[in-house]
Amino acid sequence: MEHTQTSMSNTGPQCVEIDMEVHKVVPPPPKSTFQKLKNRLKETLFPDDPLRQFKGQPLKKKWILGAQYIFPILQWGPNYNLKLLKSDIISGLTIASLAIPQGISYAKLANLPPIIGLYSSFVPPLVYAVLGSSRDLAVGPVSIASLILGSMLREEVSPAQEPLLFLQLAFTSTFFAGIFQASLGILRLGFIIDFLSKAILIGFMAGAAIIVSLQQLKSLLGIVHFTNQMGIVPVMSSVFHRTDESLRKPKLFWVSAGAPLTSVILSTLLVFAFKAQNHGISIIGKLQEGLNPLSWNMLSFQRSHLGLVVRTGLITGIISLTEGIAVGRTFAAIRDYQVDGNKEMMAIGLMNIVGSCTSCYITTGAFSRSAVNHNAGAKTAVSNIVMAVTVMVTLLFLMPLFCYTPNVVLGAIIITAVVGLIDVPAAYLVWKIDRFDFFVLVSAFLGVIFISAQGGLAIAVGISIFKILLQITRPKTVMLGNIPGTDIYRNLHHYKEARRIPGFLILSIEAPVNFANTTYLNERISRWIEEYEVEEEVAKQSNLHYVILDMSAVSAIDTSGLSFIKDVKKAMEKRGLELVLVNPLGEVMEKLQRANKAHEFMAMDSLFLTVGEAVASLSFTVKGRTSSNNV
Amino acid sequence: MEHTQTSMSNTGPQCVEIDMEVHKVVPPPPKSTFQKLKNRLKETLFPDDPLRQFKGQPLKKKWILGAQYIFPILQWGPNYNLKLLKSDIISGLTIASLAIPQGISYAKLANLPPIIGLYSSFVPPLVYAVLGSSRDLAVGPVSIASLILGSMLREEVSPAQEPLLFLQLAFTSTFFAGIFQASLGILRLGFIIDFLSKAILIGFMAGAAIIVSLQQLKSLLGIVHFTNQMGIVPVMSSVFHRTDESLRKPKLFWVSAGAPLTSVILSTLLVFAFKAQNHGISIIGKLQEGLNPLSWNMLSFQRSHLGLVVRTGLITGIISLTEGIAVGRTFAAIRDYQVDGNKEMMAIGLMNIVGSCTSCYITTGAFSRSAVNHNAGAKTAVSNIVMAVTVMVTLLFLMPLFCYTPNVVLGAIIITAVVGLIDVPAAYLVWKIDRFDFFVLVSAFLGVIFISAQGGLAIAVGISIFKILLQITRPKTVMLGNIPGTDIYRNLHHYKEARRIPGFLILSIEAPVNFANTTYLNERISRWIEEYEVEEEVAKQSNLHYVILDMSAVSAIDTSGLSFIKDVKKAMEKRGLELVLVNPLGEVMEKLQRANKAHEFMAMDSLFLTVGEAVASLSFTVKGRTSSNNV
Repeated sequence: MEHTQTSMSNTGPQCVEIDMEVHKVVPPPPKSTFQKLKNRLKETLFPDDPLRQFKGQPLKKKWILGAQYIFPILQWGPNYNLKLLKSDIISGLTIASLAIPQGISYAKLANLPPIIGLYSSFVPPLVYAVLGSSRDLAVGPVSIASLILGSMLREEVSPAQEPLLFLQLAFTSTFFAGIFQASLGILRLGFIIDFLSKAILIGFMAGAAIIVSLQQLKSLLGIVHFTNQMGIVPVMSSVFHRTDESLRKPKLFWVSAGAPLTSVILSTLLVFAFKAQNHGISIIGKLQEGLNPLSWNMLSFQRSHLGLVVRTGLITGIISLTEGIAVGRTFAAIRDYQVDGNKEMMAIGLMNIVGSCTSCYITTGAFSRSAVNHNAGAKTAVSNIVMAVTVMVTLLFLMPLFCYTPNVVLGAIIITAVVGLIDVPAAYLVWKIDRFDFFVLVSAFLGVIFISAQGGLAIAVGISIFKILLQITRPKTVMLGNIPGTDIYRNLHHYKEARRIPGFLILSIEAPVNFANTTYLNERISRWIEEYEVEEEVAKQSNLHYVILDMSAVSAIDTSGLSFIKDVKKAMEKRGLELVLVNPLGEVMEKLQRANKAHEFMAMDSLFLTVGEAVASLSFTVKGRTSSNNV
Repeated sequence: MEHTQTSMSNTGPQCVEIDMEVHKVVPPPPKSTFQKLKNRLKETLFPDDPLRQFKGQPLKKKWILGAQYIFPILQWGPNYNLKLLKSDIISGLTIASLAIPQGISYAKLANLPPIIGLYSSFVPPLVYAVLGSSRDLAVGPVSIASLILGSMLREEVSPAQEPLLFLQLAFTSTFFAGIFQASLGILRLGFIIDFLSKAILIGFMAGAAIIVSLQQLKSLLGIVHFTNQMGIVPVMSSVFHRTDESLRKPKLFWVSAGAPLTSVILSTLLVFAFKAQNHGISIIGKLQEGLNPLSWNMLSFQRSHLGLVVRTGLITGIISLTEGIAVGRTFAAIRDYQVDGNKEMMAIGLMNIVGSCTSCYITTGAFSRSAVNHNAGAKTAVSNIVMAVTVMVTLLFLMPLFCYTPNVVLGAIIITAVVGLIDVPAAYLVWKIDRFDFFVLVSAFLGVIFISAQGGLAIAVGISIFKILLQITRPKTVMLGNIPGTDIYRNLHHYKEARRIPGFLILSIEAPVNFANTTYLNERISRWIEEYEVEEEVAKQSNLHYVILDMSAVSAIDTSGLSFIKDVKKAMEKRGLELVLVNPLGEVMEKLQRANKAHEFMAMDSLFLTVGEAVASLSFTVKGRTSSNNV
């Protein structure tokens, strides 16, 4: 404030009137523990305040809103028209042309019969169309979750030797994944997926893509000199890129979107024409016709594999949830509508529970197909219905056609899809902006490749959390100085024009003060003081009198933090210094006051609202003391 | 700043000169990644800058300082004199009179032969006297660590059926505890023990005390109608209280300090005189004479129990380290000297490694005995040497005397010592100041009682860490208002006199912005804006134009945080609002700039150093816009 100007510096415009009125730090308005707990719970579990729109509405309207909340289809359904339908049919057919070959391929990736991939592209999209709130998400099996499901289950059961048991475990894992996803939504614990940061996902996806590609290449390379079909790989590898640009419509969009189905058709025809299956080309073989059989009786909760299926469900559930919600949010941001994370979790969870009872394995919104869906002009979830119907027709009538499809094409389709998950420009951007995030990214990448999918994820999440804890354990403390001509105080090492105030050491703590950092802060502050005193001695300036702690960035404090302030105050007094606190925030102020009431001292007598005011009102004392010292 | 006054309010003293000069936010001086990493590592591992005193000293002096650093005895040894020795002899004899009965008792608590407790009161104090930096710490076996060691090892091996194996495992656990403690010190990871906060320790100690007391009472009650010696328990239970008051010399200090040995002597005489051992009183029995035999050949690294001993070593190591360092720091603060945590860890670790090779089990600085040591006038670690010599004399010549000591007295001594660990006033203080910390305390307490010592600790530490993570995941965002007559902006819900500025929504984020909270912050900010717009509409005030994010309390940001700012800016633009950032701190500013260079937008054009300056320079625009809206 301007009042402090005169006593502090002689530069800058000055005010004639000197008014030493100082603003008081007051405790925040009292709240009961219950109220605080309620607020805290609300912010933790309902940060989006989902019931906001219900407030002040008549009862009937509330019912309608409630139904629309649970079934988003009721929101957009009544306004649906022919024009929208036309767009949705085109995009639905487009994603169906991707979903059929990819479904078959991903099922193979999960060591499941190819038909399961088609089943999984039929029922789940229908469920999602009713419950989901994204208009762009194309639902079905995805590569990463398929890979993880397959490799985790294979740890205990061989898909070749016990195919039925393996299938049962896959359905049961999907069931648990659904239960887990829906519970996260119902319990509003959606923030758990936030711990899979973007950096982790970039590294993880790239690592998983490499693992998947190598797996597929192994089988592809085995037949290279028979067919020369390997040429497909480089051609297709540039088709789907998941960088920001890919969200815009690429130039050869229709070519790339149609490529998988075209390859399947062409290669099937070639095999059929040349009877290549007799010359060493492995083919899919006969597939059963008909719609999804019920599979709820195949869910197996035997003790012997329960741990495995729960674990697999948990990990595939979280991974697929992360993918689905990230994709949903990306496109919602582009088209400016809201996707409610918790609601999406319930939708995806229910979809997987229903799926597990109708011969489907884990499904979610797929990155690549959703981008195609968006670019092909999808307007609503009806495109998912169109896709499901197309898959239904395939299941009912076209299955014999796939008999001659060579497996090698499926491998190529998988590689194509996953190579697009390697996002080098995004990784480079992370490298340029934040080296630590890049380290996390690389950990996820190497962890997936050299340990396992779940191991890599766990390591990367662990490192991320460790970083947050380290930030708390070793908070930054900076020395503030006055920017000449103002009453602004900023970091001396950041703003070179900032100047020290003789007799004052002004420190700012930039983190909550709690059990994890009080020891460090104690040591750090005594080091600041010693360094300051040495420098002052060298500069022959006035002695240190006040240590000002700027608490503006201390968002919370606990009992250890309060003891820390008490200890610092005591230590200061022993050195003949006075501790001054500036701007403790609401919660901190409240606890300081409570500790004070409990006869636990606390520096309640020297509290100021701004550093400027503290320096202004104390600097007279300093001058007095300094001059008397000099006498 | 005063420049902003005129445009903002008409109360308070005014300056005539209006100077719209705005202070620039600059990036901090550039540093290489290596420099930053070096700084970060230094703050993480060497916050106390241990090499500070070596700077600028001649080589010889450096050698002396180095030797003194490793062996603190070289620091105080040369100045040692007769007067100090007198004090140390008195206090040393006093703690010996406690250490002998407690040593025997605690060894029983750990299911070890009583003599091991005496061995452990001989070698470790000598090692500590040379290496330790605390002058008050009385070293030896302690109740909590003994309890945990005994109960963890008993999980796999029965001390009654396989006493030799049990002893081997106890030594091996002690060895691992020592290795672990010393490593923590050498790797300078001492901050790990900070995670056992004071609240946890209060709850944990109380729970452990109850468990131990119940165990001992069971055996005590079995003989109640024979002896009536139970009267000792209530008499002695008030002797050692570990609250702050107990650190001061209590009135009946010498009585209480001498009580355990007196009871042992009296009861031994009584048993001997009345031959009570023949009437159902269990006695210690014959103890071997002589000093500690070497036991390094008893360390057993067999595969079958390796996991158990490593786990036991880890947990008892951490617990005893926490106790030792907390005690050391408490007394160092009272007598105003420094205890270096990492150095203490090395001292305690080495002491246990040497101990495990000389028939000692886990030892550390004991709460109760150190308080007695301090109050009896201990001046240096020589009191530990005096105690060790006294124990040595006992081991060599007095062992036959303990033959008739009744076990019931040992039980009483244990109960006495641990009942003092129940610190109700401290728990009440925590309850009054911080409810969440109290919850942690109660979790530790109940966890120890109903699960296990290590389980209770793990739960309490888990909850504490979860709270920190929750603070990060759901950071506080507060709406700021102007305190009339100033350019100070503070929380509107805290400072009732603060006023909104029409056309501005000023928000402050009070935590680092990272992957764990960007989703929440996004939702929360859009809720703030909607609420603000509704309220403004009701109040028929001017429309919202600017959203100011005060970043003063955002200590760090990562790539997710940068994307968040990008997204918020985009979302604002869609609503016709402008995002303004105020006072990004060093690291945040640097990353904003880097993101900007990487063509990732960023709100670099609207940056201000203070909220006051931002409002002052933007409010003209608002007035212009609002009036044109009204036309």
